[in-house]
Amino acid sequence: MSADPKLVIFDTDPGIDDTMALAFLARRPEARIAAITTVFGNLDVETTTRNALLLRAALGLGDVPVAKGAAAPLHGAFGGGVPYVHGDDALGGVAAKLAERGDPGSVDPRPAHQVIIDLARANPGKIHICAVGPLTNLARALAEAPELPTLLAGVSVMGGAFGTNGRRGNVTPVAEANVLSDPDAADLCATVPWPIRFIGLDVTEELVMEEAYLADIAAKGGADGQLIWDVSRFYQAFTHRTRGISGVFAHDTLAVMHVLAPDLFTMRSGPVRVVTNGIARGESIQRPDANSYPPNEWDDFPSQQVAIGMDVPRALAMFAETAFR
Amino acid sequence: MSADPKLVIFDTDPGIDDTMALAFLARRPEARIAAITTVFGNLDVETTTRNALLLRAALGLGDVPVAKGAAAPLHGAFGGGVPYVHGDDALGGVAAKLAERGDPGSVDPRPAHQVIIDLARANPGKIHICAVGPLTNLARALAEAPELPTLLAGVSVMGGAFGTNGRRGNVTPVAEANVLSDPDAADLCATVPWPIRFIGLDVTEELVMEEAYLADIAAKGGADGQLIWDVSRFYQAFTHRTRGISGVFAHDTLAVMHVLAPDLFTMRSGPVRVVTNGIARGESIQRPDANSYPPNEWDDFPSQQVAIGMDVPRALAMFAETAFR
Repeated sequence: MSADPKLVIFDTDPGIDDTMALAFLARRPEARIAAITTVFGNLDVETTTRNALLLRAALGLGDVPVAKGAAAPLHGAFGGGVPYVHGDDALGGVAAKLAERGDPGSVDPRPAHQVIIDLARANPGKIHICAVGPLTNLARALAEAPELPTLLAGVSVMGGAFGTNGRRGNVTPVAEANVLSDPDAADLCATVPWPIRFIGLDVTEELVMEEAYLADIAAKGGADGQLIWDVSRFYQAFTHRTRGISGVFAHDTLAVMHVLAPDLFTMRSGPVRVVTNGIARGESIQRPDANSYPPNEWDDFPSQQVAIGMDVPRALAMFAETAFR
Repeated sequence: MSADPKLVIFDTDPGIDDTMALAFLARRPEARIAAITTVFGNLDVETTTRNALLLRAALGLGDVPVAKGAAAPLHGAFGGGVPYVHGDDALGGVAAKLAERGDPGSVDPRPAHQVIIDLARANPGKIHICAVGPLTNLARALAEAPELPTLLAGVSVMGGAFGTNGRRGNVTPVAEANVLSDPDAADLCATVPWPIRFIGLDVTEELVMEEAYLADIAAKGGADGQLIWDVSRFYQAFTHRTRGISGVFAHDTLAVMHVLAPDLFTMRSGPVRVVTNGIARGESIQRPDANSYPPNEWDDFPSQQVAIGMDVPRALAMFAETAFR
């Protein structure tokens, strides 16, 4: 890479696919991790923060701050997460083994949203946020630092289900898990004037990492490859049981890919809103700029970018060719 | 046809595509029109009822009762309709010419929902409702006669946008016009145990009647063909302006086709709910039976059928081969 590595804050609720995404991010030359910020989501924030510390240690990222974030959405209570997807430890059962390796270190004294603000202020125009959990930390950072949108290079989110190709929600018929976990935060983040991009189920369910593909990474990828393999077994059992797929969706990894190689994706422009109440709670809705409608609830909000397609073979190659070790 | 013609109540807010659908229904041997019931929608119910009378006269359906229905949705006020789609007379400017032909007769003394109830009771198991406007009359009939579901042969609705193929709403990014005009009525109709089938934008926007196709019907179809041509000019100008299409969507005609030839359609099974408040108001959402979700707002409602595909060439041929005169 001739360009300087991109400075990335990884906002995460690890999480199996979070783990795979973080391993990928850690080994790519296009990026440098500025911080790992945690949030409730796949499980409670105590667990996701412990997992972030374990992963920092496992990946040898000792100099990267881990900051603990929101324990609950802006309104209401934490719903209990999805242990049936990610396991009771949210790491597909591998947390205990990682913990045996010794003290994983401690968290940054600041809350996650403060770390986001501090890093953005210290590196104006340089920070990319890659958010792969509920958007609560980002919403808090925006509330505390209204100038944040002017300070960031970009915000790439794994979240939403925009129905661009017939695919809809994974928790309700219309809602994707990250957005549904804090729809108020997601609606706030979607409607402020900053360069936020949504990588939703529309595209993340297009890319499946098959078992043989993962086995190859396990064989060649050293400790990283073994971690990716070990952590993904529980999730693969879930996707096989519920979707008949012998592999896993990479979900969060695709948001990392969007930071590093945005040209992998085809994006659609238009304001985005999130439904915060009623049966469609957690639905993410884009009003495409190309369509005309009577006056509506998307008027007066800035156009954002939503992924509607991706280069699956090139994305799979990019992950497989990563220098896992 | 060897079978007896199906007895059809045409519940309508004419309307340009309503006119084309009624002409089609009137000339098909598979059906006999039991009544035309009117509702607000494309314009106010006074106008749509006048139009229904004009169309009854123009099509020579003098013995078919026309009954005036709801003037407003179950909750709230009539929103003013869509004169920019259907014209100030809701008939694309042809109402005045039709009115010159003399007295079009008068309406049935009963309200539309009472006619629906009376016909269903008099013909148990025989009546098909073909509803191509807001579902307010049907909701009222259900409220007055809770046994209605047991009396009907079927309910085929032009309404909804289920996002099965990336197509969404036509009034908001998620809401289709008929459902949005009375989402409470639509949610009620979707959730009672009766054989309701939704023919939504997912399929109706797949079928375009091109200008040359309509010109051929105008040339060969006598007065009916001329009516179809005349009435569709205004709508074609709208679709060309907003969608770049030199033709019209047949929308309501497809609900008639579903009554007459259901095998034209591919259907998907699952409970259907309609969003009644918030930014997604008027969105129709099906939870496909084939998908598994955690407990949700679709539980405990009966599975209904939603169109997800259709045989466009056969549908176009069926319309073109109709004995218009």
